[in-house]
Parts: sequence; C-alpha cells; structure tokens
Amino acid sequence: MSGMPSPVLLLLRSPAARDGAPSGYDQVDPAAPVANALDLGITRGDGIFETITVIGGIPQALDAHLARLERSAAMLDLPAPDLPAWRSTVFAAVDAHTDVPEAFVKLLYSRGIEGSDAPTGWVWMQQSGDFTRERSEGIDVVLLDRGYPSTVAETSPWLLQGAKTLSYAINRAALREAKRRGADDVIFVSSDGVLLEGPTANVILKLGDRLVTPKPDLGILPGTTQHSVFDIAKLNGYATAYETLTPADLRRADAAWLVSSVRNAAPIRSVDGAPRALDAQLTASINSGLAARTT
Amino acid sequence: MSGMPSPVLLLLRSPAARDGAPSGYDQVDPAAPVANALDLGITRGDGIFETITVIGGIPQALDAHLARLERSAAMLDLPAPDLPAWRSTVFAAVDAHTDVPEAFVKLLYSRGIEGSDAPTGWVWMQQSGDFTRERSEGIDVVLLDRGYPSTVAETSPWLLQGAKTLSYAINRAALREAKRRGADDVIFVSSDGVLLEGPTANVILKLGDRLVTPKPDLGILPGTTQHSVFDIAKLNGYATAYETLTPADLRRADAAWLVSSVRNAAPIRSVDGAPRALDAQLTASINSGLAARTT
Repeated sequence: MSGMPSPVLLLLRSPAARDGAPSGYDQVDPAAPVANALDLGITRGDGIFETITVIGGIPQALDAHLARLERSAAMLDLPAPDLPAWRSTVFAAVDAHTDVPEAFVKLLYSRGIEGSDAPTGWVWMQQSGDFTRERSEGIDVVLLDRGYPSTVAETSPWLLQGAKTLSYAINRAALREAKRRGADDVIFVSSDGVLLEGPTANVILKLGDRLVTPKPDLGILPGTTQHSVFDIAKLNGYATAYETLTPADLRRADAAWLVSSVRNAAPIRSVDGAPRALDAQLTASINSGLAARTT
Repeated sequence: MSGMPSPVLLLLRSPAARDGAPSGYDQVDPAAPVANALDLGITRGDGIFETITVIGGIPQALDAHLARLERSAAMLDLPAPDLPAWRSTVFAAVDAHTDVPEAFVKLLYSRGIEGSDAPTGWVWMQQSGDFTRERSEGIDVVLLDRGYPSTVAETSPWLLQGAKTLSYAINRAALREAKRRGADDVIFVSSDGVLLEGPTANVILKLGDRLVTPKPDLGILPGTTQHSVFDIAKLNGYATAYETLTPADLRRADAAWLVSSVRNAAPIRSVDGAPRALDAQLTASINSGLAARTT
C-alpha cells in the first residue's frame, strides 16, 4: 500500500439489530489487531462480508449490498444486522478516508467470540487497485468443477450456497488453480454441467441483443454489480434475462464478462485457452455506467 | 469459562519453515485481539487448524496432528509450517497452563495479512468441557447431504476436501441443522450415497469383529483419533479396515461412534431418529485407551 492514503478501520459497537438508536463505531488503527483468537470469524470462517465500490465518495449500490448482507446473515442464522448502524458507519468511513478516484469499503460481520453471543462487525476502507488493463484488454478464464449439482441450494441449504460467507478458502484455491493454468480467473460449473459464477464475480453473456446471466436459484450469489449492469443494459436497448446456461453458451456468446465490485466489468478474452471475441464499445459503456452510479 | 483456569495464548514469531533455529513465540493476553482486519484467516477463511487433546500434560497424537497440519498446508499452497517451532510452542502452552485433567490446544495457521507474505500462527490452550454424558449415553445424529460426489478429492483438488481449513461455515451450519432436527451431530453422505464423516469427527462402525471407517480418499479428513482407536482396537483383538460404507452399513452396524479430539469416542445412539444399539463396554475400553495415550 506504499503511496496510497492510509486505510480506515471502524469497529461497530453493536453490529446486530437491537432496540434503540444505532450505537456507533470506534475508529481504530488499521494496522492494529482487532479480532480475538476465539472469534468464530477466524476459527471457523463463520461470518459474512460485502465489498462495495466507492466512486467520488459515493458507495455504489449500497442498498443492494446491505440487503444482501441481511440475506446472508439469515442464511447463516446470524443475528440480523443493524442496517442503519452499518449504513452510517460506511458513510463515516468515506468521510474519514482521503478522497481518491476509486476506493472500496469492506463490511465484515462475524458470529463473534465463541460463547459470547456478541457478533463482531467492522468497516474497512482503502483505495482500490488499478484495473484499467483488466477492464480494457480482458481476462483469461478457466472452467472449474464446483462439485455440487445445480439444485444444491434448494435441496441442501446447510451448504450455504448463495451466501457471501467468510469461508472462501475454496474460492482462493480455485484462483490459484487458474494461475497455475496461466489464467486470471475462474468460472465454476456445476456437476450437472451448468454455468455458475466466478469465485468473486458473476458471469454475464451477450447472446444476440440480450444480456443473460445464470439464474440465482442455481446456488450462486445474487450479484449487485450484475444487477446494475442489467439496469445499464436496459437503458442501452438490450433485453436482459436470468437463465440456465452452459459452457457451450459461454463459448458461442457474442461477448462475455465477469462482473464484480471494485474490478467492475472484465471482458472474457479466452476460456480454457480458446480465444473469444470482446465487445470493446459495450464494455466501455457498461464500465462508464457502473462508475456513474449515484446510489 | 467461569471457574476455569485462564486460557493460554502464544503467538509464533515465524510459523512458516525457514533457515535457522525455531524463532520462538510471544505469550499474550488471551482476551486481547490478535488478528489484523486484513488477515486472510478472517477475511477469507484462508488457513488451517488442528485441535489436540492434552491429558495429564501430554498432547495426544501430537506427531499425527503436526503431520496433518503439514498436509493441510500443502493442500492450500501455504508455506510449509515450521514443525519444530509449532511443537515447542505446544509444549510451552502446556507448561504455561494450569494443570487440569483434560485440556486442548488449538493450532491456527493462516495465510496472514493480505499482501504481507507472512503467515499468522498461534497456539491456544484451554481446559476442555465435560463430555462424560456424550461418551456414556451417546449422541443422536442425522444424515445430511454433503453435495459432493465421493470422487471429488481426486477430480477437483481446489475444493480442498480432506484439508482442515478455517472455512468451516458449512460444518457449523450442518450442526445447526442437526439441532433443528433435535439431534446432536451430523454424518455427511456424498451425492452418490457414500458415508463420509461428521463436521468435526470421523465415523467408525463395528461390523462383527471388525472396526471399519470410511476410506480417506473419499474426500474426508484423515482422523488422528480414528487412527488411535484402530490401534486400541487391534490390541483388543479386533480387525480394522478402511472401506467404502453406506448409510445402510451404519444402520446394520453392531455399534457406531463419532470420534474426534476433545470429545473422543461418542457412541451413536440414534440415526435420523431411529434408535441403534450401543456397546458400552467397548466404548469405555476405547475411551480409556484414548485417555491413556502417552504420545
């Protein structure tokens, strides 16, 4: 982080919903330790998070991210988060951080210290890296087996598919496997051959005059950036749809992207080493639209 | 932890292997925070752990636990742990802790602060809870779908099946599902109908004069306690085997246990609400044998 402004770290005093006014936060040294050795966030990956882009001081799609935080909490049987407290802490982080063109805030909400019944919550803010190259030149992806059938969210909710949990070791391992194969990122495929999502991104295909993304009931994360891209696409005259897609659809698509907070829309320039077409104009239009969000 | 002696927390100065002598540890206040907000252990569940029972000052099956720590690290592409440093820190924790009949040490090894290339490692020690009831009266288990086929460890190593990672949110969710169903614990079943393991335990069946456990290549954790139980069983005249088992085998078994560090051997007294036989004498013999381990 040399040359970057100092990150900001705010600890929520009461991250779970309770009676009374939001209880505020404490600003602490971002380099100081904040999690106890018995925090279930670290001992068991038992918690959730959100990452939100901040452009020109505006946390983008904040409502959607907070709604997803609440949804993930419910899937993990965590106490409902105090959304007004989280919202005001996000804005406090933005106020406390040096103005930069692109930054992000990360919301972390864990079950807290084992046996305490007191969840842990904090908001971290730092300047974003530079994703100009990924957004313009595109990324190479590989397809990796996710192991689960596409019905798993419906049949086996304890597998937490579709929740944004702190238990992301598999997502990290999949990205290392992609690097080993000379690629930048991953798209997971279900054991029954359905296109799912990236480890930290949603996939969107351009099929003719439609933008199409996998249906969220396939056990994938409902994407806040994907949702914004669909809004932008509609303004640009595209139809949008949620469908069951396959790797063959990815290969035949006129264009394809992995979309996520921070990196925004990264066009996919190859799949398992096979080059595929980019749509530079539409990509630029989508990324401009994402950067111009005012809420 | 009221009434219990104070836990002990030792931070390793250099948990990864390096040239030179082990670099030692720092004893810190167990109630003070120790993990940075960017520690990948908490932000991504990107790390591993071991839990080791300590009886009468002896960390049981320490070599097996350290070997598994090394194996899990390799599966996650973590730097190889400095096993002599971990070993001496475990003994230092035992020395620093008040003598109690049963305690455990927990080894936590994470990838460390994002971008730092410096892993985090600590050893936590505390007195164990009382598992007399579970060991004598038994536990009620439910079978839950693990979602993966039994071939997943072989076909898809990035899914990290068989590694003891910090990404245990699913294991915690499965245990909550068991409670909702009125049970104490879970045995996972693969999508192709093979008996796997519990969220934090291995399953052992008594089939005639044999003790049988699922084969480790099914994507389950190789059990240190299970291995000790097999040693004890052989001394008691039982044959032992690693096999592909099914829920039908569990139902027809003469006796069955979930075995793990700390709780040791807990006989299974019902499966999905259907009572099954206990073998009180063999259970007592196994738990005596486990408590009497000298290494």
